[in-house]
Amino acid sequence: MAGLHVRSLLVTGANRGIGLGLVQHFLRMPNPPQWIFAGCRSPKGQRAGLHHGDAGSDLPCVGSAEVTNPASIKAAAAKVGEHLGGSGLNLLINNAGIIKPKTLDSETLEDMTEIYTTNTAGPLLMGQAFLPLLKKAAQGSPGSGLSCSKAAIINISSIGGSFSSFFTWDVIQATSYRCSKAALNMLSKCQSLAYREHGVLCVALHPGWVQTDMGSSPPVTVDDSVQGMLKVLSSLSEKETGTFLDWEGNVIPW
Amino acid sequence: MAGLHVRSLLVTGANRGIGLGLVQHFLRMPNPPQWIFAGCRSPKGQRAGLHHGDAGSDLPCVGSAEVTNPASIKAAAAKVGEHLGGSGLNLLINNAGIIKPKTLDSETLEDMTEIYTTNTAGPLLMGQAFLPLLKKAAQGSPGSGLSCSKAAIINISSIGGSFSSFFTWDVIQATSYRCSKAALNMLSKCQSLAYREHGVLCVALHPGWVQTDMGSSPPVTVDDSVQGMLKVLSSLSEKETGTFLDWEGNVIPW
Repeated sequence: MAGLHVRSLLVTGANRGIGLGLVQHFLRMPNPPQWIFAGCRSPKGQRAGLHHGDAGSDLPCVGSAEVTNPASIKAAAAKVGEHLGGSGLNLLINNAGIIKPKTLDSETLEDMTEIYTTNTAGPLLMGQAFLPLLKKAAQGSPGSGLSCSKAAIINISSIGGSFSSFFTWDVIQATSYRCSKAALNMLSKCQSLAYREHGVLCVALHPGWVQTDMGSSPPVTVDDSVQGMLKVLSSLSEKETGTFLDWEGNVIPW
Repeated sequence: MAGLHVRSLLVTGANRGIGLGLVQHFLRMPNPPQWIFAGCRSPKGQRAGLHHGDAGSDLPCVGSAEVTNPASIKAAAAKVGEHLGGSGLNLLINNAGIIKPKTLDSETLEDMTEIYTTNTAGPLLMGQAFLPLLKKAAQGSPGSGLSCSKAAIINISSIGGSFSSFFTWDVIQATSYRCSKAALNMLSKCQSLAYREHGVLCVALHPGWVQTDMGSSPPVTVDDSVQGMLKVLSSLSEKETGTFLDWEGNVIPW
C-alpha cells in the first residue's frame, strides 16, 4: 500500500469480520508491518496473550484485551510495550463493536450501557492506555505533519451514527447502537483535539455497510471494505484529523 | 405564553437550576398547567412522591423518579397516570443531567457510564415509560399536526454535544459529557422518527451556557434561558420535530 508504511499496529475485535480482514490485508502487504497485535475478547482456539508479529502465519498475534475492562487494557498496553521494546505503536484501530437490532421501544438500560461501554468507552480507554506508545511512534517519525504511518487512532464508526443518514431507519432502528456511534464520533473529535499536539492523527471511519455477523444483506464485502479503508488510511494527513470518513474516502456529515 | 397551552407536564431534575426555573415559569403563567410533575433524585426538604399540581405553591409536585432506575421510572409513570385520571401528559422535559469537567486523559469508565446513564439512557427510559400518557394527550388534542401543547418530548441537550462547536474545548474538555450529549441528540432524532406517528413531537434543546451549579461564569441567566426556551416551545410544529435548537430558536448544527 503506497503511502502507508506502518511498523506496528493493533486492531481490536480482530477475531472476525472487519477486524480479521484488516489483519489479513496487512499481512498480505509486500512489506507487512513488523508487529501486528490482534486483540479480541474471546480468542477461541487461538493463542492467548500478545505475540510478536509473524507475517508468515494467518493470524500471528492474538491479544486477550477486553476493551470494556480497564485493567485488561492496561495489561495489554504493557505487554505490547514489552514486545515493541523501545519502538512505539504507529496505528491503533478501535474496531471492536457490538449491535443489537432492536426497536426503540424494546431497548433497555442494559443494552444502552453494554453497547456504549464496548463501542464508545472502550475506544476512549484504549486511546488513553496506548497514548504513550503512539506518542513514542510519533516522536520517532520524521516530519511535523500527521499521518497513519506516523501515529494514528482509527475509530471504526458507522454511518448509523450520522444524523443525516436515516435511510436505514425502516430496516433497523438500533437506537442504542446509533447513540453509541454518534458518541464515538464525538470521542474521535475530542481525541483529535487532545492528541494533535502529540503528533497523533484521529479519525472516525465508516467501513461501509459490510457483510459481517452484525448486518444482513449488505452490499459491501469485507475485502472491498478493508481495501478501501487501507487506501483511505494511506492518504490521511493533518487536514483530515478529527473528521468522519467512509471506506471510499468521502466525508460523512456528522 | 401565547401558543403554549399545556394542561400537564413533567420536568426531571427539577430541584435546581434550569429544571427548577422551568417549573417556576410554568407556575407564573396567567393560565398555568393543571398538573406539574417535578421529578428529582433527592427531594431534600421537599415532599416525596408525585402530587397533584397546586399553582399557588412554589413547587407543587415533587417526584422521586430516579432517571437511571427503570423500576423507579415505571413507578413514577404509574403514579403520574393515576393523578391524571383519564388525561394524558402533554409535555415531558428530560432536563436531568450531570457533567464532570475532566480532561480527556482523566476520564474513567465509571465517568463514561454514569454520565451516559443519566444524560442519555435516562431520557430513553423516560420516553418509553411516558409514551402511553403522551399518546393519550396527542389523541385527546384536536388537529393533525405536532406541537408542545399537544404532546412533546423535550430533551435538554447542550451545544457541547455539537460537532461544530468546540469553542469551549480549551476551557472545558468534558469528553464524557460531550459524548453523552451527542448521543442524546441522536436519541432525540430516533424518538422523533419513532413517535411521530403517535403525534409526539421530539426535539433536543440547548438551554444556553447557563449559570447553574454545572458551569462557571456563563453568560445566560436561568431566567433568560427558561423564558427563551418556553418561547421556542410555543413555536414548535411538525417542521421542527427531530431538530436541535437553542434557547433562542436557532438551529444548531449536529
